[in-house]
Amino acid sequence: MIIDCHGHYTTAPKGLQVWRDEQLAALKTPGRLAEKGSVHISDDEIRESVEKAQLKLQRERGTDVTVFSPRASAMGHHLGDATTSRHWTEHCNDLIHRVCELYPENFVGVCQLPQTPSDPLAGCIAELERCVNGLGFIGCNLNPDPSGGYWGAPPLTDQYWYPFYEKMVELDVPAMVHVSASCNPNFHTTGAHYINADTTAFMQLLTADLFKDIPGLRLIIPHGGGAVPYHWGRYRGLAQDLKRPPLDELIHGHVFFDTCVYHMAGIELLLKIIPVDNILFGSEMVGAVRGIDPQTGQYFDDTKRYVDASALSAADKQKIFEGNARRVYPRINDRLKPQTA
Amino acid sequence: MIIDCHGHYTTAPKGLQVWRDEQLAALKTPGRLAEKGSVHISDDEIRESVEKAQLKLQRERGTDVTVFSPRASAMGHHLGDATTSRHWTEHCNDLIHRVCELYPENFVGVCQLPQTPSDPLAGCIAELERCVNGLGFIGCNLNPDPSGGYWGAPPLTDQYWYPFYEKMVELDVPAMVHVSASCNPNFHTTGAHYINADTTAFMQLLTADLFKDIPGLRLIIPHGGGAVPYHWGRYRGLAQDLKRPPLDELIHGHVFFDTCVYHMAGIELLLKIIPVDNILFGSEMVGAVRGIDPQTGQYFDDTKRYVDASALSAADKQKIFEGNARRVYPRINDRLKPQTA
Repeated sequence: MIIDCHGHYTTAPKGLQVWRDEQLAALKTPGRLAEKGSVHISDDEIRESVEKAQLKLQRERGTDVTVFSPRASAMGHHLGDATTSRHWTEHCNDLIHRVCELYPENFVGVCQLPQTPSDPLAGCIAELERCVNGLGFIGCNLNPDPSGGYWGAPPLTDQYWYPFYEKMVELDVPAMVHVSASCNPNFHTTGAHYINADTTAFMQLLTADLFKDIPGLRLIIPHGGGAVPYHWGRYRGLAQDLKRPPLDELIHGHVFFDTCVYHMAGIELLLKIIPVDNILFGSEMVGAVRGIDPQTGQYFDDTKRYVDASALSAADKQKIFEGNARRVYPRINDRLKPQTA
Repeated sequence: MIIDCHGHYTTAPKGLQVWRDEQLAALKTPGRLAEKGSVHISDDEIRESVEKAQLKLQRERGTDVTVFSPRASAMGHHLGDATTSRHWTEHCNDLIHRVCELYPENFVGVCQLPQTPSDPLAGCIAELERCVNGLGFIGCNLNPDPSGGYWGAPPLTDQYWYPFYEKMVELDVPAMVHVSASCNPNFHTTGAHYINADTTAFMQLLTADLFKDIPGLRLIIPHGGGAVPYHWGRYRGLAQDLKRPPLDELIHGHVFFDTCVYHMAGIELLLKIIPVDNILFGSEMVGAVRGIDPQTGQYFDDTKRYVDASALSAADKQKIFEGNARRVYPRINDRLKPQTA
């Protein structure tokens, strides 16, 4: 079985954006109360939106199930207030739930959180509980920068976040550290802000004792860990200079990188440098890069091809494709058939 | 000849920091006028500061000349105002000039700029002219984020910066895009902010027509280009999706990455992915990582060893070690013996 740990609902039917546009327009109307209202999307629209995209690509590429969450760039935590974020988040998560109910063998849910810049954890515990206990979700996407590129929240290692981490551990779910769109003109969303956030989060983890304080915490750093594997020597050297634990020890059981790296040389570096137990198969499809690589004739984000073509043993590939995901997201085991290998 | 394009005076005698501490203390004294004053450092102190560090490492590692600039993390453009930054910058650059005069065969100067958050180009043209025409410097370090981690300046591709770029072209000098210390608790200076700035700058360049507007502009992106070579497929794909020119075309003659990547696998990726004409040898010594890698028994930042050990041809190595630097920093040719190879 091949589990893709990183998929967003980037193809959601237009009813979702209609609702969001109206919500944001209402914010500009003085005196108008925020109302949750309803998102109008039919099951057929949902079917059409994934049949032509994620499901088609799953079939073509030979992957089985996608750990599926709302479109990351649209989380927009910097827009409006805590109520804005809560209403939008609940609708987005409910829509993911509908996809997972329609296609229980193909999608397992991961939730967006109702974060805001003024209170980066506002309502997050309640929404996590609702999604995990109520909707059968298996993880969440945690935004370390709800300001959208101005980085005003405390570092992820600050005790500010601990109550949320404790709830994650209690529910036995991991978080993918994932920012949303950048509203800072310096940062292109998918070309800079996403990658920078990954690098930033890793360095925060390197310099603090978060996993000593919360031993059950598991975090996924997406996009192949940002710059981290490429600069592994720098990070090993910094850890040593700063008298921090060796990196393999830091990440063991706690930090996982996905395979969203869109060329063979990058994947080879990732697989060579990062312990195999810390790598999860992911493709970010349909996501940041949608074209075909003229050098290969294949989709840039068809990352399964790169892992397939690597020199890893079959056992190691099985870990990356399935085994590790079952460890990192243990609740996935209730949703899927038992492990085959 | 081996030219290291990336060295900072991180070992400056303590008189420099004494002056800086006093300057910053004076900022807190109401009514006190900013005075430039003098930095008290003897030639012997300078000799001692480099003999035991940069010169010793040059000899041990077999490099010849370092393109030398003030300590990047200490530029501190976010502190004080334009006068603060101007006085500090002039002292830092004058000290680099003294090093270069004492060791003309070992060091060639690159200047810090007197940037400030409120006016990221304040006084930069004047200081660049003073350093290039007056002190024989061959380039500058341009900070894309004088706020120190809050990213309030316009992107590097904004016309705001163009007058400075035009002066660079007139003087035939390149800029290394290099931030200073982060005062944002989210970003570790050398482990996140530096690398993020590199990635950010590249993506800005990818999305704009800066080099069409200013064809003579040359920029060095340090630290091996941040995350860019590792994610080269992502950037190729983004360029294609955004209908931008192919990356090799974008960077040709304009964008250069140094070799400040502190492990063999990272250097191999860099050399495999980036055209050899766009790579400059650099070590960042004495810099971000100062220890010895227990896996190799050698300094992490002894990047010459990695390039030496790579599969590149002798001709390609010569480009990286010398030829490219002579093209990118043409004024270096007035300071050094003619090219040997």
